Amino acid sequence: MSIQIPRGTQDILPGEVEKWQLIEKKARELCEKFQYREIRTPIFEHTELFTRGVGETTDVVQKEMYTFEDRGGRSLTLRPEGTAAAVRSFVEHKMYGDPNQPVKLYYMGPMFRYERPQAGRFRQFVQFGVEALGSKDPAIDAEVIALAMSIYNSLGLRKLKLIINSLGDKESRLAHRSALIQHFEPRISEFCRDCQNRLEKNPMRILDCKQDRDHELMKSAPSIIDYLNEESKEYFEKVQQYLTDLNIPFTVDPNLVRGLDYYNHTAFEIMSDAEGFGAITTLCGGGRYNGLTEEIGGPETPGIGFAFSIERFIAALKAEEVDLPLNKGIDCFLVSLGDEAKDYTVGLLQKLRLAGFSAERDYLDRKIKAQMKAADRLHAKFVAILGDNELKEKRILVKRMETGEQWEMDLENFVEKFQELQ
Amino acid sequence: MSIQIPRGTQDILPGEVEKWQLIEKKARELCEKFQYREIRTPIFEHTELFTRGVGETTDVVQKEMYTFEDRGGRSLTLRPEGTAAAVRSFVEHKMYGDPNQPVKLYYMGPMFRYERPQAGRFRQFVQFGVEALGSKDPAIDAEVIALAMSIYNSLGLRKLKLIINSLGDKESRLAHRSALIQHFEPRISEFCRDCQNRLEKNPMRILDCKQDRDHELMKSAPSIIDYLNEESKEYFEKVQQYLTDLNIPFTVDPNLVRGLDYYNHTAFEIMSDAEGFGAITTLCGGGRYNGLTEEIGGPETPGIGFAFSIERFIAALKAEEVDLPLNKGIDCFLVSLGDEAKDYTVGLLQKLRLAGFSAERDYLDRKIKAQMKAADRLHAKFVAILGDNELKEKRILVKRMETGEQWEMDLENFVEKFQELQ
Repeated sequence: MSIQIPRGTQDILPGEVEKWQLIEKKARELCEKFQYREIRTPIFEHTELFTRGVGETTDVVQKEMYTFEDRGGRSLTLRPEGTAAAVRSFVEHKMYGDPNQPVKLYYMGPMFRYERPQAGRFRQFVQFGVEALGSKDPAIDAEVIALAMSIYNSLGLRKLKLIINSLGDKESRLAHRSALIQHFEPRISEFCRDCQNRLEKNPMRILDCKQDRDHELMKSAPSIIDYLNEESKEYFEKVQQYLTDLNIPFTVDPNLVRGLDYYNHTAFEIMSDAEGFGAITTLCGGGRYNGLTEEIGGPETPGIGFAFSIERFIAALKAEEVDLPLNKGIDCFLVSLGDEAKDYTVGLLQKLRLAGFSAERDYLDRKIKAQMKAADRLHAKFVAILGDNELKEKRILVKRMETGEQWEMDLENFVEKFQELQ
Repeated sequence: MSIQIPRGTQDILPGEVEKWQLIEKKARELCEKFQYREIRTPIFEHTELFTRGVGETTDVVQKEMYTFEDRGGRSLTLRPEGTAAAVRSFVEHKMYGDPNQPVKLYYMGPMFRYERPQAGRFRQFVQFGVEALGSKDPAIDAEVIALAMSIYNSLGLRKLKLIINSLGDKESRLAHRSALIQHFEPRISEFCRDCQNRLEKNPMRILDCKQDRDHELMKSAPSIIDYLNEESKEYFEKVQQYLTDLNIPFTVDPNLVRGLDYYNHTAFEIMSDAEGFGAITTLCGGGRYNGLTEEIGGPETPGIGFAFSIERFIAALKAEEVDLPLNKGIDCFLVSLGDEAKDYTVGLLQKLRLAGFSAERDYLDRKIKAQMKAADRLHAKFVAILGDNELKEKRILVKRMETGEQWEMDLENFVEKFQELQ
């Protein structure tokens, strides 16, 4: 009996994987231009990192983590997101002491959440994200947003909608918090148990509740925007000014919140506006988290970042019907006739490949006609045909498939001659 | 208190990660030339895949797997190697029915083994590997070996030693097996308990035993080479002929074995010969496994592959003191003086970056001298200096750091002019 892939996960196969490679390549290239450098943290971390760094009251930590004990009895968790580990590494390697500040990092890799599998949601998914640690210049908030938009744009996505909000600084958030408690407390019994728990712990998360989102108190809830103090207002205005300078259109949405205590100031989401994209339209989420580094045991350090999933990126490309520039054909297929010629192609193939050409030959002992068909299926630009006779006479026949042009070449310097055909 | 990285794992940080990126890029490029295409399988699989596909009697399965139950009670295991999952995917997606045969795949990603952490050994490590499924042409054995060697060579490794062996076909292996049992049985009580178990189950694995390797019966044990039947001998000779055609030096080592039943014919290892490399000198291991696909529930399919760890690759580069061609400086650092100029650099920076330059500015409100120092630390090729005065007059000062040359440029078309300086 055959063994199947675990539920909620997927294989990315040739034919599809090229899209992933292209997205990752573009993201890496743009990170280099923007001077974000890669960091690779382990697939699993001590569970405590996520309870502290993601938040004990979140659904992710309470319901969705893959937690297990290793053979030494330590509680480990497959990472459900990338920020906590990046910050853990920042603290552990004392990057706050690096003379190059802010420290600008990116990461890319699989994340894990035990969710009910459904269209577009996987238990293992790939996130790309960046973190800029060590600066509270609103220009870095704009830069981070610009980087996300640039990556999407570089691959041809156009129907994007950027929404931003400010969660203010600590003072602003405390004022908002009191207002929220006052607003919800009298009728909290009409809300779900989760919301009842949230009221004292983290009332802002009530605004995020999926179950109670249609309750009339939701719409009339006090908005953080009205509780921003002067400093926070100024910060937010600066971010908006820079986005305008960068020609990045945006909408301010006062309902965009992040429920954790150490989030503050800028929050943003990038959504797809493409028709037929389906229910999940958020492609990318990010924001400022000036308190997170302390939570994880480091010195007070301002930080901002975002993350997006490659799966949704690809779904958005599909919804916009973007035609990606994927390489579709090989440079040369070597067709041979006769045992000696066939053996000879082993070395010839290697020469072509090491000269930089993608090249292939037959490995199934096929007749010449079937070899030509194989060349066709690989969309070979050229076919080179070698028979035992040609081998004796040290020549080889080369055909350009698109035009049908043919050349007879000297076998000894075939690769040089082949290069000239390009 | 700060939270630490799990034992036996490591962060790959900027400064080091560029080596990984380069190796992966080269490996991808060569795979494209050799026509191997990427496959990405999940980080975890059903545990049964590895007990069947790696082998119940192996140390990996018995002692080293990260196995856990998910919230649905299924037994999952973090993949300890890549072949079993690649073959699982090959079967699950019926790739044996693809008209393009053989199916040539590569993979790259983290693997997990719960081993005692020691220098050069990690519980999470990254493997690159390839699998060619569907051909029993000895030329594909040579191709697979050539690909591994090409990747090493492309990054400058020279002190490599390739050893090969043949494990023969089923018939040859059965004959060898009987000879091994005859050889060891009379004195099996002198061996460790593992070896005693292996005698009937899989006597070839006795030859792999670390504990008993100095026992006198080891040296005199019958060699598989002496039990190869005609067909197996011919196959092995062909592989050697092709390697010679490809100018790849090799040594035949009759002691190189792979203990699992479905391994057969070609087995190989690439070792580092560099001084000071330390105890672990094997960089890459591979071989033919014509029975594995059936074991995993698919049709009988010949296969061959190899895998190497990036960690050891990097250790070998270090041992050979290879100087990798890593990009070390950014193209331009924007220095600003005054609030308006500073704000203006936000947009200017973006223009440079989207024109393809790596560029940076200050995000810490530093004075001009400190900004110049920051530019130095980033090895900026150029520095562009903008003050409030220059901004008013729409000009900007550009300096080539290596020579000290300076230009005053029109701010409006700065990016175009900057391009001309390259």
